[in-house]
Amino acid sequence: MIPKGFKLAAVHCGIKKKKLDLGLILADGYAKCVGTFTTNINCAYSVTFCKKNVNNLIRAVLVNSGNANCFSHKSGLKDTVSLAKVTANSLGVKQGNILICSTGIIGERLPVNKIKTSLTKLKKNLSKDIKKFATSIMTTDTFAKVSSAKAGKAIITGVAKGAGMIAPNMATMLAFVLTDAKLPSSVLKSATKEAVSDSFNSISVDGCMSTNDTVLVLSSGKVELKTKKEQGLFAKKLKSVCIDLAKMIVKDGEGVSKFIEINIAGAKSPCEAKKAAKSLADSALFKCAIYGADANWGRIIQALGQAGIKVSEKISIKSSSLKKKDVKINIDLKRGKHKTAFYTTDLTPKYVKLNAEYS
Amino acid sequence: MIPKGFKLAAVHCGIKKKKLDLGLILADGYAKCVGTFTTNINCAYSVTFCKKNVNNLIRAVLVNSGNANCFSHKSGLKDTVSLAKVTANSLGVKQGNILICSTGIIGERLPVNKIKTSLTKLKKNLSKDIKKFATSIMTTDTFAKVSSAKAGKAIITGVAKGAGMIAPNMATMLAFVLTDAKLPSSVLKSATKEAVSDSFNSISVDGCMSTNDTVLVLSSGKVELKTKKEQGLFAKKLKSVCIDLAKMIVKDGEGVSKFIEINIAGAKSPCEAKKAAKSLADSALFKCAIYGADANWGRIIQALGQAGIKVSEKISIKSSSLKKKDVKINIDLKRGKHKTAFYTTDLTPKYVKLNAEYS
Repeated sequence: MIPKGFKLAAVHCGIKKKKLDLGLILADGYAKCVGTFTTNINCAYSVTFCKKNVNNLIRAVLVNSGNANCFSHKSGLKDTVSLAKVTANSLGVKQGNILICSTGIIGERLPVNKIKTSLTKLKKNLSKDIKKFATSIMTTDTFAKVSSAKAGKAIITGVAKGAGMIAPNMATMLAFVLTDAKLPSSVLKSATKEAVSDSFNSISVDGCMSTNDTVLVLSSGKVELKTKKEQGLFAKKLKSVCIDLAKMIVKDGEGVSKFIEINIAGAKSPCEAKKAAKSLADSALFKCAIYGADANWGRIIQALGQAGIKVSEKISIKSSSLKKKDVKINIDLKRGKHKTAFYTTDLTPKYVKLNAEYS
Repeated sequence: MIPKGFKLAAVHCGIKKKKLDLGLILADGYAKCVGTFTTNINCAYSVTFCKKNVNNLIRAVLVNSGNANCFSHKSGLKDTVSLAKVTANSLGVKQGNILICSTGIIGERLPVNKIKTSLTKLKKNLSKDIKKFATSIMTTDTFAKVSSAKAGKAIITGVAKGAGMIAPNMATMLAFVLTDAKLPSSVLKSATKEAVSDSFNSISVDGCMSTNDTVLVLSSGKVELKTKKEQGLFAKKLKSVCIDLAKMIVKDGEGVSKFIEINIAGAKSPCEAKKAAKSLADSALFKCAIYGADANWGRIIQALGQAGIKVSEKISIKSSSLKKKDVKINIDLKRGKHKTAFYTTDLTPKYVKLNAEYS
């Protein structure tokens, strides 16, 4: 299910040995775009470049996997701009209407020529095959991540690649959500902000924030959603697509044996709810306890206290069976009325082994 | 080497099955005390109690191992106060001159009666045997931690127990430093503050801050250090004792295979230097890389960036052989003139397995 007004392509350009490693999203016309980026200050050159263009109308998004284009070379940003120019020329659009994303190893120069010489092949490959595109942006992911929903007549389809970091330095979460919904920019922005907050910003595999994380929501505007009701439904469906993709990223985290949903209720503020959930998701001891199916609530008290959240005897901690693959932890702090959901994984010996392998 | 004016005792009171689990430090007269405590807001009742008394002159410190006296029972604080009263009576001192420390499992009621009925035996055991005392405060530590130094004629002797968390919920770092040096309170305070900052606050095993962490420096005042030079030497030696103990704690961390010294230079401020070091010490990916002897500097750039520290191509990263048991990582940020040292461990499959065991 592909929204009207978009085509996609994916080819092998030679960054990886054999697999697809270059993808393209091409809008028929000018698409509105809302972008969210990593707050890691040592971000990739492509992120710096995207931030400059993201508020323009967008025609194309070029994505490579296998190289993060981060901290790689003095001329890293120049390389990116030069690549954007050649891509724009090849597609007959302007450089300012292009976004470039990268994911893969940190510290190696992006082979821009391999990408440039593959652009013709890429153009010839344009189709509606979103799964192939989703495959081309994978690094250590074990499955392609696609999710779709309808909001009235409008279609929302997202793809993502995950927090797999098996091969050293692989560290990027990328997500692209396409829609043909036409709605006011302010509505698209606020819907994106809320969706990202409750999905991609509510997950943690190992607490390590990538240099390349990028979420782009692109709207071709082919299907008008006029009423507030329609727009509200769009926001709801956008969020469900994002949460769906975010959960897939967590489930595909490397070495993971369990998927943990942490539900916090009774917080004093939305911020406190998220802080509470994140303090557990980032706690090595909590994650080890879940791995070992050990109902060790002392570690929950410890983690909450480290985050500055005072708990009383009234606190309620409930969980589904810790022995299953999907675990739910429901915590009512009994401090206020706010709640949140957060998604994380256990910490496993396999995770350590995978991430200890030689570069 | 025991400073003048202190005696120690250690007995088995029954919290643990067989091992020593109750220790006492008794000052002949009134000792000055400087205390540093965990900032975990869900701290143990004994920490709450200590904070109230720590600025008084101190006669005795009672320490139990095997039970953290944290989040255990509604009457947890009352229990602690009642224990302090009985202890004070037994020792012929006032309750306000007593400190109580606990370490062990979170969430179980402290068996105060077992402790109370052991006080007579404890008094009979008073001696200069500091190693026995150091043994009585151990939980999952594999060796007793004692370090001594001389500052002129004054003696500084410290004991500590570590961040072993093999048995679930065990989570406490305790350190007691005794000295017979007599010096102005302000000098003792500032020397302690600096020593703790560069030692116990510059270590991390798993980033999980305990509910019970306590450092007490007690001075009997038997040996006067009058000159600034003598006092400066005292501060230097106090710091070396604390760093010595802190390193022992890290080396005895559970499941640890390597000891890592992170030296940060070229930071803009002391705070930035520490933030940089801590961002590495808390990074699961960095710690996995050291475990695997993988010179993966992309993860250093990522961790620094997550902490908001912008690095340029000028950054210098050097390390000793990652294949040895002791690893040094020297990083010059080339941003300023400040530096720090931080001590941490690798992350190992053994750590995960140990912390996944059933309660």
